[in-house]
Amino acid sequence: MTITVDYRFPPGIDPQKQAKIIAVGQTAGTWDAKWSHREDTLKQHLAEVIDIQTDERGYSIAKIAFPEMNVENDIASLLTMIFGKYSMAGAAKVLGVHLPESYGQRPKFGITGIRKTLNVWNRPLIMAIFKPALGLSAADHGIILKQVAQAGLDIIKDDEILGDLATAPTLKRLEACRQVIEEIQQQTGRTVLYAVNVTGKADQLIQKARLLVKQGANALLLNVLTYGFSVLEALAADPEINVPIFAHPAFAGAMCASADTGLSYSVILGTLMAHAGVDAVLYPAHYGSLPFEAQEEHNIRDNLRSRNVFPVPSAGIHPGIVPKAIADYGNEVILNAGTGIMDHPDNPGAGVQAFFEALERLESGQPFTVDSLPPGALKQALEKWGV
Amino acid sequence: MTITVDYRFPPGIDPQKQAKIIAVGQTAGTWDAKWSHREDTLKQHLAEVIDIQTDERGYSIAKIAFPEMNVENDIASLLTMIFGKYSMAGAAKVLGVHLPESYGQRPKFGITGIRKTLNVWNRPLIMAIFKPALGLSAADHGIILKQVAQAGLDIIKDDEILGDLATAPTLKRLEACRQVIEEIQQQTGRTVLYAVNVTGKADQLIQKARLLVKQGANALLLNVLTYGFSVLEALAADPEINVPIFAHPAFAGAMCASADTGLSYSVILGTLMAHAGVDAVLYPAHYGSLPFEAQEEHNIRDNLRSRNVFPVPSAGIHPGIVPKAIADYGNEVILNAGTGIMDHPDNPGAGVQAFFEALERLESGQPFTVDSLPPGALKQALEKWGV
Repeated sequence: MTITVDYRFPPGIDPQKQAKIIAVGQTAGTWDAKWSHREDTLKQHLAEVIDIQTDERGYSIAKIAFPEMNVENDIASLLTMIFGKYSMAGAAKVLGVHLPESYGQRPKFGITGIRKTLNVWNRPLIMAIFKPALGLSAADHGIILKQVAQAGLDIIKDDEILGDLATAPTLKRLEACRQVIEEIQQQTGRTVLYAVNVTGKADQLIQKARLLVKQGANALLLNVLTYGFSVLEALAADPEINVPIFAHPAFAGAMCASADTGLSYSVILGTLMAHAGVDAVLYPAHYGSLPFEAQEEHNIRDNLRSRNVFPVPSAGIHPGIVPKAIADYGNEVILNAGTGIMDHPDNPGAGVQAFFEALERLESGQPFTVDSLPPGALKQALEKWGV
Repeated sequence: MTITVDYRFPPGIDPQKQAKIIAVGQTAGTWDAKWSHREDTLKQHLAEVIDIQTDERGYSIAKIAFPEMNVENDIASLLTMIFGKYSMAGAAKVLGVHLPESYGQRPKFGITGIRKTLNVWNRPLIMAIFKPALGLSAADHGIILKQVAQAGLDIIKDDEILGDLATAPTLKRLEACRQVIEEIQQQTGRTVLYAVNVTGKADQLIQKARLLVKQGANALLLNVLTYGFSVLEALAADPEINVPIFAHPAFAGAMCASADTGLSYSVILGTLMAHAGVDAVLYPAHYGSLPFEAQEEHNIRDNLRSRNVFPVPSAGIHPGIVPKAIADYGNEVILNAGTGIMDHPDNPGAGVQAFFEALERLESGQPFTVDSLPPGALKQALEKWGV
């Protein structure tokens, strides 16, 4: 089996020469006569340039096929091979990575597993983020969760910046929120997921994740790109981590925001996440608060769904965005709002209600303008954040 | 204590506005009246814009001071805070990170510890890389090591692409090389370090590293940027890993090669590595085979040395480069050559000899041109690779 990678070179770069450098330099390398008796084995490890196309602007895309035997069925060794040393060689961007179906891992839960846990099947899931991000106590987290969970929220997560801090230690946050989750379960039969941000040095992080699950955590959040794909893959493969893992895209821009270097967002947040075993992936919605291309967002969505991973468009999501999001996604999506729920003019619970009102209004085909709305949570949200 | 970060914005970006977005959005975030009773705590977590300068080309540098209490004394939480979500916000590059002395970890060995292990004090250390990178057997590694170790080599490492592959499993490579290292020790009293590439999912990687050390590995190699800083920090903090750790820069270009996004090489390969507990860091020499700026190389060198971490300029290093390298570095450096040793016209042992001849020739102030050299390993090297 081979792994095919698409590299894009800007005008002025010789794509034939660079493709050859990658195919040889990122695999076996060169050898001289003293290794002629190993030639068969050495050749097996070489990559092959299978296609080079140059467009009218002078941009070239080289397709290079790498032997799967060169890597360890994980993302870290894959990145080292396809863009390790070569990432420092000049202008080249990895636009696509095409992996065998069997490469890496599949999510333990994914779209179907998360829906089954929540027993919600026929609508998008609504997710919130605890805000303000830093400075609330563990008890404050419990108070917020009660408001939004009673309003029908499906999932809540820590802000990605909130680690295991003295002001609100991770286990204390879990303790405060677990009580609320149990109350809601007893009162309504509904499950609410709380994705707890798991942090620390890799060994401590894995231990802490196991402890959190033992203590009742029903979901985890990981900043995959600052902690490392190998940490995600360890959690995803760990039988004790029998809860969904949500990936946050923090730091993705450091690898993906440049036009002519790094990798595309759809590779990092789409393809690689989808083969690393994560259950849901957050990323910027193109009509949100971060600059993002619609095509990249669509590619991420499709790459994730192809392996049953839940797409979670985020950043600047508020109730007024629901019609655009549903047009793009249909129901198989988690809509994730931070201030778009927490800063609702009324209260966070009204922020959640506004999302559900928006979903119902769309479902029943009613108009979606401020003027057409009855007084209530959705009207207030649209007045504040627009459509 | 605070952590100060320098962000550079290109012309056309409003640095005041962006600096404010970072200082608030990457810390506590905004809050409304309902959290006024938490105002004191929330404010403690906010970052502060301490300076903004714009140069004549329109580039601005904003200095932002973050409270150290927001992060966990590690690199992953630091990166999430200073450039997590914001990395996706548009054109901005992290040029400098200024950490408290006590932040993170210090190397267990570093420059002084590695010199003590080798008992070599008054010259640069010479390091080689097994080549070809993929396709040799474990026994081939032993044969190569014998040649270069007998010629006086100090350190050898796996190619960063060589993981735990069927053609040469990691433990088998160690077994073959450990025998050679023991022979050399018995025959000459000299220690030769072999930095074994440690790979796998984070938990397995850490277990494998411990096993390798138990089985006699006297150094480790880690692709820090593809596996994750949290993995490096776990190894560096682990009392069982009582051998030097060498960091490979694979994938650094994905984060650092862009002029207006990502982070500078001297932050990723200098500052952050130096606070993560690693003992030696490889990076491109500016006169080597990869495009690299002299100033960035010098900054990396100085950032590493300031915390006793060994700088290892690499990529395209060969004996002819020795005069330039010594002029830049003096003796506190590890000169790391791959094909510049392995592809010496005579044999890899002659490649090592050529480095030592070069050092002696410089020491004694003799001319360093092909014509002035007597026949031998150095002359052959200069004839092949130039000066």
